Amino acid sequence: MQRRFLVGIDLGGTNCRMALVDGQGRVCRRERFSSRDFDHVDGLMAKIEVICREFEIAVRGAGGEIVALGAGVPGLVDYQGKVMVAPNLSWLNGVDFSARLAELGQWSVRVINDANAIAWGEHAWGAVRDNSSFLAVTLGTGVGGGLVLGGRLWVGSDGAAGEFGHVVVEPDGRPCRCGSRGCLEQYASATGILRSVREELVQGRRSSLESLDADALTALAVGRAAREGDALALDVLNEAGRRLGQGLAMIANVLNPEAVVICGGVSLSLDLMRPSLDGELSRRAFEVSARRLRIVAGELGDDAGILGAAHIAGCTDALWP
Amino acid sequence: MQRRFLVGIDLGGTNCRMALVDGQGRVCRRERFSSRDFDHVDGLMAKIEVICREFEIAVRGAGGEIVALGAGVPGLVDYQGKVMVAPNLSWLNGVDFSARLAELGQWSVRVINDANAIAWGEHAWGAVRDNSSFLAVTLGTGVGGGLVLGGRLWVGSDGAAGEFGHVVVEPDGRPCRCGSRGCLEQYASATGILRSVREELVQGRRSSLESLDADALTALAVGRAAREGDALALDVLNEAGRRLGQGLAMIANVLNPEAVVICGGVSLSLDLMRPSLDGELSRRAFEVSARRLRIVAGELGDDAGILGAAHIAGCTDALWP
Repeated sequence: MQRRFLVGIDLGGTNCRMALVDGQGRVCRRERFSSRDFDHVDGLMAKIEVICREFEIAVRGAGGEIVALGAGVPGLVDYQGKVMVAPNLSWLNGVDFSARLAELGQWSVRVINDANAIAWGEHAWGAVRDNSSFLAVTLGTGVGGGLVLGGRLWVGSDGAAGEFGHVVVEPDGRPCRCGSRGCLEQYASATGILRSVREELVQGRRSSLESLDADALTALAVGRAAREGDALALDVLNEAGRRLGQGLAMIANVLNPEAVVICGGVSLSLDLMRPSLDGELSRRAFEVSARRLRIVAGELGDDAGILGAAHIAGCTDALWP
Repeated sequence: MQRRFLVGIDLGGTNCRMALVDGQGRVCRRERFSSRDFDHVDGLMAKIEVICREFEIAVRGAGGEIVALGAGVPGLVDYQGKVMVAPNLSWLNGVDFSARLAELGQWSVRVINDANAIAWGEHAWGAVRDNSSFLAVTLGTGVGGGLVLGGRLWVGSDGAAGEFGHVVVEPDGRPCRCGSRGCLEQYASATGILRSVREELVQGRRSSLESLDADALTALAVGRAAREGDALALDVLNEAGRRLGQGLAMIANVLNPEAVVICGGVSLSLDLMRPSLDGELSRRAFEVSARRLRIVAGELGDDAGILGAAHIAGCTDALWP
């Protein structure tokens, strides 16, 4: 029998990454190019095709075949893999990206939202491989989410499920780009954490973060300062953890899932956020649901999305409804 | 072929109601007795058995048979139908109620949480019969919830899913019996609405509700006063609607379901709450999810739970996970 390979595409607003993945979730080859070089889907498709051909040659040399091609896209993707809205890649709006990818070869194809791809990656080969119901939370520039229930990705009626970043944690809180106020994203994302730092500094609190210029003041730097004992940095991460715990209590009460996997850059500070997160969770969630909820950091890092897109493309019945 | 009948049990903290139901969801016979007469499951089982025998005799007379027996219980019920905790019927704690009901006859049996039974009833024969993904919200003394996703009841890992009443809508708000603060239940339940009325009256606002004594001051009376133009009553229902809209926005963003069905006594005032509910929903939820969400009042009234328990007992694969 031929060895079976998968191809994953992680289409970001800035970069597009592609990987050839084997049946055990190992990346065999990678390619990366700028998404900003394109202003139409045709240009992107030409580039993807060239890379697929290269992958195919490599795979045939190893006596194998590519059986599935999956892509994660930063936007709203319907159940059939059509991109409804992609705010940072507006030329993809309305494109049946799944159909376009299917033209490239005799493989099964799936296009999903990028946060859903991350969720599926951690399910297939990562931190929640033993869990059939969980929320994946991505803490990055924004806060995203992907929901797996009963072993399948719950994408919702329009593919719009999983927007955990826009759970309200403070009804009259910080205005959010979504039009609401006090969304979790405004407190627990990298952007939210930096905003909290700046608000504290403006109020005259002292911190080692004062000395950093705008470029160096990142969520990673806040985590580093907290580890070195900086009180302001610790307070800000506590607050982010508390808000995250409030949101997760809601998920525990409404869905009673087995696990939550925290991914994205800010998840590197998860250990620092855990005390306040756990405190809020136990205060707000029903005991049985809070006790059940296993909270873990993602294991696949930046590869979660690419691996998830590749894996889910080879699965039938992986999506709800 | 024999006509097939179902039996539904709605076991409340005060009363237990039983009904014989035909295949079209029509109640053919009813019985009602006090749950307070019992302090052990054996007594309850003896009473249920007597009624089941009466139902069997009636059914045989009509040339039919009873094929399923289902019960809704006010508490935490696991996936197999064991009652984990029933706060108001503590003698049921730890009882495998499903196994006990199965001893009574050759029928399929299912025991579920009472809010889930209401959700399933409205799905089987009520307001959301055409929807495969929805939240049922019960606005009564408390606020309960039942979640149907992909045509199946999502009960969660421990049977504890659907606790929509304990979504936090005001982080430092009114203390809740669950140990958290600012739960939706504290604002949108009958109890919450009456608390809001009392708070307003204490602050010196005038209202036709002032003249009512404690027994007469009910959520129904608040609805009646609002319809007669009482400003305080209208404000309080607006506030309840606003809080409910905030919670539903969260459901829309996280689950993107097709519908929400509002049940329970307070749902009789749903039309009065709709303007503020809709306003909050459109302000807080993503457009595609808000547009999708059909919000309707339940159609089955007090029979939703009994009908849902009866119907789901005859279904295989009706529960997740």
